[in-house]
Amino acid sequence: MMNSFGHIFRVTTWGESHGPALGATVDGVPPGVALAPEMLQHWLDRRKPGQSKYTTQRREADEVRILSGVYEGQTTGTPIQLMIENTDQRSKDYGDIVEKFRPGHADISYWLKYGIRDPRGGGRSSARETAARVAAGGVAREVLKALVPGIEIRGYMTRMGVHEIDRARIDWDEIERNPFWTPDAKAAETWATYLDGLRKSGSSVGAVVEVVVRGAPAGLGAPIYAKLDTDLAAAMMSINAVKGVEIGEGMNAAMLTGEVNADEIAMGPDGPEFSSNHAGGILGGISTGQDVVVRFAVKPTSSILTPRKTITKAGEPAEIVTKGRHDPCVGIRAVPVGEAMAACVILDHLLLHRAQVGDGPCGRIG
Amino acid sequence: MMNSFGHIFRVTTWGESHGPALGATVDGVPPGVALAPEMLQHWLDRRKPGQSKYTTQRREADEVRILSGVYEGQTTGTPIQLMIENTDQRSKDYGDIVEKFRPGHADISYWLKYGIRDPRGGGRSSARETAARVAAGGVAREVLKALVPGIEIRGYMTRMGVHEIDRARIDWDEIERNPFWTPDAKAAETWATYLDGLRKSGSSVGAVVEVVVRGAPAGLGAPIYAKLDTDLAAAMMSINAVKGVEIGEGMNAAMLTGEVNADEIAMGPDGPEFSSNHAGGILGGISTGQDVVVRFAVKPTSSILTPRKTITKAGEPAEIVTKGRHDPCVGIRAVPVGEAMAACVILDHLLLHRAQVGDGPCGRIG
Amino acid sequence: MMNSFGHIFRVTTWGESHGPALGATVDGVPPGVALAPEMLQHWLDRRKPGQSKYTTQRREADEVRILSGVYEGQTTGTPIQLMIENTDQRSKDYGDIVEKFRPGHADISYWLKYGIRDPRGGGRSSARETAARVAAGGVAREVLKALVPGIEIRGYMTRMGVHEIDRARIDWDEIERNPFWTPDAKAAETWATYLDGLRKSGSSVGAVVEVVVRGAPAGLGAPIYAKLDTDLAAAMMSINAVKGVEIGEGMNAAMLTGEVNADEIAMGPDGPEFSSNHAGGILGGISTGQDVVVRFAVKPTSSILTPRKTITKAGEPAEIVTKGRHDPCVGIRAVPVGEAMAACVILDHLLLHRAQVGDGPCGRIG
Amino acid sequence: MMNSFGHIFRVTTWGESHGPALGATVDGVPPGVALAPEMLQHWLDRRKPGQSKYTTQRREADEVRILSGVYEGQTTGTPIQLMIENTDQRSKDYGDIVEKFRPGHADISYWLKYGIRDPRGGGRSSARETAARVAAGGVAREVLKALVPGIEIRGYMTRMGVHEIDRARIDWDEIERNPFWTPDAKAAETWATYLDGLRKSGSSVGAVVEVVVRGAPAGLGAPIYAKLDTDLAAAMMSINAVKGVEIGEGMNAAMLTGEVNADEIAMGPDGPEFSSNHAGGILGGISTGQDVVVRFAVKPTSSILTPRKTITKAGEPAEIVTKGRHDPCVGIRAVPVGEAMAACVILDHLLLHRAQVGDGPCGRIG
Repeated sequence: MMNSFGHIFRVTTWGESHGPALGATVDGVPPGVALAPEMLQHWLDRRKPGQSKYTTQRREADEVRILSGVYEGQTTGTPIQLMIENTDQRSKDYGDIVEKFRPGHADISYWLKYGIRDPRGGGRSSARETAARVAAGGVAREVLKALVPGIEIRGYMTRMGVHEIDRARIDWDEIERNPFWTPDAKAAETWATYLDGLRKSGSSVGAVVEVVVRGAPAGLGAPIYAKLDTDLAAAMMSINAVKGVEIGEGMNAAMLTGEVNADEIAMGPDGPEFSSNHAGGILGGISTGQDVVVRFAVKPTSSILTPRKTITKAGEPAEIVTKGRHDPCVGIRAVPVGEAMAACVILDHLLLHRAQVGDGPCGRIG
Repeated sequence: MMNSFGHIFRVTTWGESHGPALGATVDGVPPGVALAPEMLQHWLDRRKPGQSKYTTQRREADEVRILSGVYEGQTTGTPIQLMIENTDQRSKDYGDIVEKFRPGHADISYWLKYGIRDPRGGGRSSARETAARVAAGGVAREVLKALVPGIEIRGYMTRMGVHEIDRARIDWDEIERNPFWTPDAKAAETWATYLDGLRKSGSSVGAVVEVVVRGAPAGLGAPIYAKLDTDLAAAMMSINAVKGVEIGEGMNAAMLTGEVNADEIAMGPDGPEFSSNHAGGILGGISTGQDVVVRFAVKPTSSILTPRKTITKAGEPAEIVTKGRHDPCVGIRAVPVGEAMAACVILDHLLLHRAQVGDGPCGRIG
Repeated sequence: MMNSFGHIFRVTTWGESHGPALGATVDGVPPGVALAPEMLQHWLDRRKPGQSKYTTQRREADEVRILSGVYEGQTTGTPIQLMIENTDQRSKDYGDIVEKFRPGHADISYWLKYGIRDPRGGGRSSARETAARVAAGGVAREVLKALVPGIEIRGYMTRMGVHEIDRARIDWDEIERNPFWTPDAKAAETWATYLDGLRKSGSSVGAVVEVVVRGAPAGLGAPIYAKLDTDLAAAMMSINAVKGVEIGEGMNAAMLTGEVNADEIAMGPDGPEFSSNHAGGILGGISTGQDVVVRFAVKPTSSILTPRKTITKAGEPAEIVTKGRHDPCVGIRAVPVGEAMAACVILDHLLLHRAQVGDGPCGRIG
Repeated sequence: MMNSFGHIFRVTTWGESHGPALGATVDGVPPGVALAPEMLQHWLDRRKPGQSKYTTQRREADEVRILSGVYEGQTTGTPIQLMIENTDQRSKDYGDIVEKFRPGHADISYWLKYGIRDPRGGGRSSARETAARVAAGGVAREVLKALVPGIEIRGYMTRMGVHEIDRARIDWDEIERNPFWTPDAKAAETWATYLDGLRKSGSSVGAVVEVVVRGAPAGLGAPIYAKLDTDLAAAMMSINAVKGVEIGEGMNAAMLTGEVNADEIAMGPDGPEFSSNHAGGILGGISTGQDVVVRFAVKPTSSILTPRKTITKAGEPAEIVTKGRHDPCVGIRAVPVGEAMAACVILDHLLLHRAQVGDGPCGRIG
């Protein structure tokens, strides 16, 4: 239930980890935007498993097909169906979990809710669903490119377990150069060794992902209950394994005083400029024109090689070891997912804004 | 735009800080539940300004009237209108901010979005809107009481600025005994001195609020895009000044390994029991029956006595000092608001769950 | 439940026939539109009871207050609360119906659904709720006036019982000159005598109301499930006592051949012109620029002086005579309600259209 | 935009007439219901083209696949993806309409709205989209069967052009015995000759379809803006070519007096019984337990062999003859579509009702 998100740019995903296919219906797309599968494939390839030794070795082509909504290379304004077939469905790997609930996984909660569950790879609760999000995010990116030239949406890892990046070393060009999508080259080195150790011991670790939207227009957000930060928080929290979401200063804001936290304003050549960005580009739920900064914590994969205590459906005590092919740090593959969600939310709010306020002028300064 | 939240139990708020009144329309309320204004007043009084020297000295009776949806003391299933009249509207206090944008406030973003703004007390962006939420939350509590006997929803402060509580000292009985709604008596003492200093110097500080739902049934949450944690995150992030939201272990989950983070499961006399609660009572977006734990950071009030740099509508540089009556730690009054939001979300998901799965049996263990 | 309508321009109504007040929250209103209570009052006065001997003699001032969303005479883009206090609540008139279900009324269905009902004047099921719609429609009209200069929304009666108007005699100037809002002066005369007879005998009769939107831009409508005709049909069917809705040729379209029904197209000086308007200005759920024509049938008031067979809550057979003050032809007062609903739907779709397609150019011909 | 309908049982359709496939995502399905493709195929086969000489000769297998949401033959509560591949996409038939707008079709309105359109078979505006609705309706039927044993949903034609059925001859067993799904055997004979003539001359004619839901529980409907009749009206009006919708007495109610129209109530062995059903089983937007009766008019296909005047995209006058394979009375194939929409709406309201009121007792009589 409730497998859709977005107000105008509305994405509905479907499909299970080991079903024949999964996908997304993308509705509310403006007409006349150039769109082809390869534009989406680019983003899907970043999320695709098996890209490095640090991600699951499940083999999926993750090839996306556009089944509707595009005519002669352009969007028509009708719903776009994106379908990705599942090719590697080795469901025999998952035999043990039919009767036992894996700690930290959604096995027990799906069972308690529905009284039935698809145990193959976690069924609908699998992070495989995020492939559909990344495809939909690709559509959002193409529309944004047409409507807001120069907008950039960048995601990257800022923490892996106990190791955080040094913000002084942030360099966006580094992001593409390491398997962790981190902008700190030195952190990438440390993390490589760290994660290798964890991977070999069959352990896992959490991560923090940060997504920045540069060049988003001011005025996005629909207070009170669809504020831009509200919708970003929901978008990120809906990603598998996410346990915390921050805007700008985030949880740390609790430790600051008003003098430090409130960003002072000056007039720049192109409009207002701020002395700092504790707000993460959002005031009162509306974008200010600064970088929009959202951050989220991804918990460690619960699938580890250490035996864990659990129970069976019959209520009997049991032990479980989750074999199979898993990510030692699932946060890595959450980077393109976070970017995709941000792209969808920003576009959705752009459309929502022009519904109420139009393309024309709103508040001017100076 | 988008001044409603909830799927079935749907709350629409309206009203500005200095308009004649504000309120909430509460729709989707089950029929036959006893409801009277005094049941709601109890909660409103907790949020009411001027309750201690630590909150704004604006005087508001915050008296709620029920204008519809209740007949002979019982809900009828039709929309309940809750109205609170504004009595203390000293708008002269706010004269300076008509032309200048207050740093950290929504003045500039509302202006950029709408090209018009009600400067009196922040208009719609004022935290005064949360009175309507607390009233609606009171309705949710009464319905929950009828449907889930024994459910408890408790909010409390766990951090004020640099000072955090000691979790070993948590005692829910303490919460009502100090003006900070904190369960740590010793923290309350420290905070009193700390905040007094800040208040006198015209400064302000942030806070962390934690809300726990004890006794919520397992099975609540509607994956993928209305997961219980997703909706809680949205609900809390929509509160004024909130910059971060956490479920269970929250941002800290990024630092843990899978061995530590995943809560092991055992069979107890009344069903499954967990060895720990890093998950915050939610797996795969669905409640497990454990305590649901959500936490959020409230930034420091941006209204401080230190002059701050800003600009005018004309784009001229300016300084501003926000006089008036303000909260040195607005997190205090966010406690009853967070509780109210949690109550609304939990009830909404209870109704949503029975829409899809019914009152009857779902998954059983043992 | 579900007391809201509209996608962007979203109206939530609340209140019962004999409660202290009723109203509407109007959300999604564009900012910067001039709005004052007297602009709304104009439309409310047309729906107000007791305007002629042909409508109920209940006395209601139906005075509307704007409690939020307007600052210094202009909309701010935040929700507008419209409140109308009930002044004439002679609930003693309704004593008999506490135990008995009035045939043709919603007494029995509300009871079966909710197990509780407010019997005073029908509670929430009373047509009194439509006052809130008319007020909201007034807001929609002001916004439309600002966005689509020259747009006209006219409602009128085309049938009272067995008497239909002669379409050759339609003259919009006549509408304001008779108590039936009919554009056929001669029909007005016939109806006066006819309805007087019915009124004196305590009977009632049905009616057909037609609403025409002239000057609506082409392109409005959001296929497949929020087509313009779909939303108009829902809007009209939601009005009390409505049993049928037609677009253009309506039910009669079933009797035509393709040669007769499909409107031929020619090029006029300002764009496409159609040889006829069987389509009612809508093709494929999208407006064509022709007059949008919607029509609905209102059943006769079920409150009549003839005793009717019914049962009591206890299941005992009974007779009931609905005394009190009632409309012999409730279709008359449905005219301003139909207009209001049309205004809301057209505006909503205008906003929805610009969300997806923008203010800029869409398809051009020639 | 807005390609979804339903509140809890929510259907999102996608796909164009001549794209690779079309389908529906069905969300909010209760878990644990037996479901297999062949259960849906049964209903799709009724809508399938080419079943008799009276329907289009386009050849489509209309074979439905279930891509998600079902595990080991049972629904899991997660979204069900239904996909139907298009096999017969002879798009060369449609060459002429790339530049010219077909009168009565959505060509011109889609063009005006979007500035781009898929001309192949009408693209998204094609009635081919209704195959997805029929598949979704099949899912609704299986869930209804599980939740409301004995419920029956029957659609049939009551009018073809100038020929109406004789209600005295209605016999549901006849429906399956003639190609027009009419319950009047004698009408079927007349219609056969009539339609044969029209078909041979390349003409077309309209129809009226009636759908009856027998055995729907009392209490369904969510006033004020999701009344059962409101949602049925929207559902039917959203079907291609529908121009009017009626509940019970429908437009005819306008001609009746209160004495005739209001259905009297008596107590029967199993609850309330009504002396008649002018209300069509719905009072105040809520079902009463009587047969729910909805009726809609389908206009004649606009694709006919007579040349028609129109214009080109360039605004030049032109003539067009719509060759290709078309239905002389598209109302016939609208019968299974109307049934499917009714099934979806009834189930949706059943789920909505139990959200607010639960499975437990509501109002009792006697």
